[in-house]
Amino acid sequence: MVKAQEMKKKKSPSSKIRFKGQMLYGIHACAEALKNDDRRVHAIYVSDRIWNGDRRNKIPGLMHDLKDLGRLDHLPAPQIVEKKELDSKMPRGAVHQGIAIDVSAEEEVFLSDLIIKSKMRDKSLLVMLDQVTDPHNIGAILRSAAAFGALGVIAQSRHTPDVTATMAKIACGAVEHVPIAQVTNLSRALEELRAEGFACIGLDEHTDKTLSEVKTAPKTVIVLGAEGKGLRPKVAETCTDIVKLPTQPPIASLNVSNAAAIALYALS
Amino acid sequence: MVKAQEMKKKKSPSSKIRFKGQMLYGIHACAEALKNDDRRVHAIYVSDRIWNGDRRNKIPGLMHDLKDLGRLDHLPAPQIVEKKELDSKMPRGAVHQGIAIDVSAEEEVFLSDLIIKSKMRDKSLLVMLDQVTDPHNIGAILRSAAAFGALGVIAQSRHTPDVTATMAKIACGAVEHVPIAQVTNLSRALEELRAEGFACIGLDEHTDKTLSEVKTAPKTVIVLGAEGKGLRPKVAETCTDIVKLPTQPPIASLNVSNAAAIALYALS
Repeated sequence: MVKAQEMKKKKSPSSKIRFKGQMLYGIHACAEALKNDDRRVHAIYVSDRIWNGDRRNKIPGLMHDLKDLGRLDHLPAPQIVEKKELDSKMPRGAVHQGIAIDVSAEEEVFLSDLIIKSKMRDKSLLVMLDQVTDPHNIGAILRSAAAFGALGVIAQSRHTPDVTATMAKIACGAVEHVPIAQVTNLSRALEELRAEGFACIGLDEHTDKTLSEVKTAPKTVIVLGAEGKGLRPKVAETCTDIVKLPTQPPIASLNVSNAAAIALYALS
Repeated sequence: MVKAQEMKKKKSPSSKIRFKGQMLYGIHACAEALKNDDRRVHAIYVSDRIWNGDRRNKIPGLMHDLKDLGRLDHLPAPQIVEKKELDSKMPRGAVHQGIAIDVSAEEEVFLSDLIIKSKMRDKSLLVMLDQVTDPHNIGAILRSAAAFGALGVIAQSRHTPDVTATMAKIACGAVEHVPIAQVTNLSRALEELRAEGFACIGLDEHTDKTLSEVKTAPKTVIVLGAEGKGLRPKVAETCTDIVKLPTQPPIASLNVSNAAAIALYALS
């Protein structure tokens, strides 16, 4: 703390914030990234308002956690910056909660990595996203996937945004625990997963079978399409089962992250 | 359509948009409100870009639906406005999809109205929100509540934002089907519901009982607290059951709308 306050006196806060790696913000997203020893941490920026007094702030608690984990010595000292300077470096309206960090991007993960991981477990759950592109939805799905112990998310490289600060914030730290494997062809990935013994359960409104009719299996991949469009025909054809949620008109469709949460709950 | 195009020629679009009632935007939110004959519709504004050609637009389809429902004659003719004028009247970043409407606010709904409704049904599901204030979360919860046939949402008047355009957009039309009853005291409302035979199922991480151990009942109210804070003690005490979702660390908590979706699925 003394170190950080000394730095504050020496430098004008306006010149401090520079991101050379990936920017993350928000207490949960930053906390999990700082605990992840696969990440190189270039800088930690904390708002002066949070550092100097807000009693509700969780950042001192986070520093204690990092110390207990033996991580603190490996991290750069937090740089205290003016809140408005931090605001100016974030996407408009971002709720940064007084903290942003500059970290190395995570290593690329491949479908084969997830398959190898699944061989070392009794039970494996994956989520596949067919043209789900909204970072808020992907972030929320990552969070639920982590909460229900999913090994990873599979998405098509051409249609999937990279992990952004917004996605990581919504995921509340889950990006550190649930990797996204990008593949070029989803049906081919499904075929590969079927060959490895995965049940491939696609969610779609246009079917009679409901989710509760599917039994949980040791290896399952939940396949979700974009809202409105649903699954593309080739992807749906490669699933072992297509099921719907027992919703009713006139508002029969759910938000895709809510549908994902239900399927993860039911099939985990 | 001719009428709308004539109007476009007569008036400069910049002077057209005035909201005297509640503003709603987005195709689903507007469509359901226009179908709701409890709403007085003061004006319908459609972006010129959407009206004049985007093949993917759903607004002509909506007009046909309204005609089939016999509603079209009771509605004012759509006013075609410039997209940038529509943009300027919306909250920053709002995805209005080319349509905004000016409608009367919905009538206030009381707990007693929901109780009366529940007496006319074999099965009744309600959702109670304890200090959940984020309009995105409330909107998503309304959508799932509608999809699983919930009768209504109960919230504390002091802590609940009014239905806003953002909330209605996220709810995708569900605000027309799932009323929010505002009460002054949630535990008293729960006592009233218990006296009417409702099972009051609170969701909280700090318990051993899981959601799957609760059987569905003819009358159920699902009680949800704010993320992080959870249920307030007095509210939790008045529930008949406190259950958790079978999530796992390190990311054990779900977004509140995802938790709501799972509980609605499991208890509907």
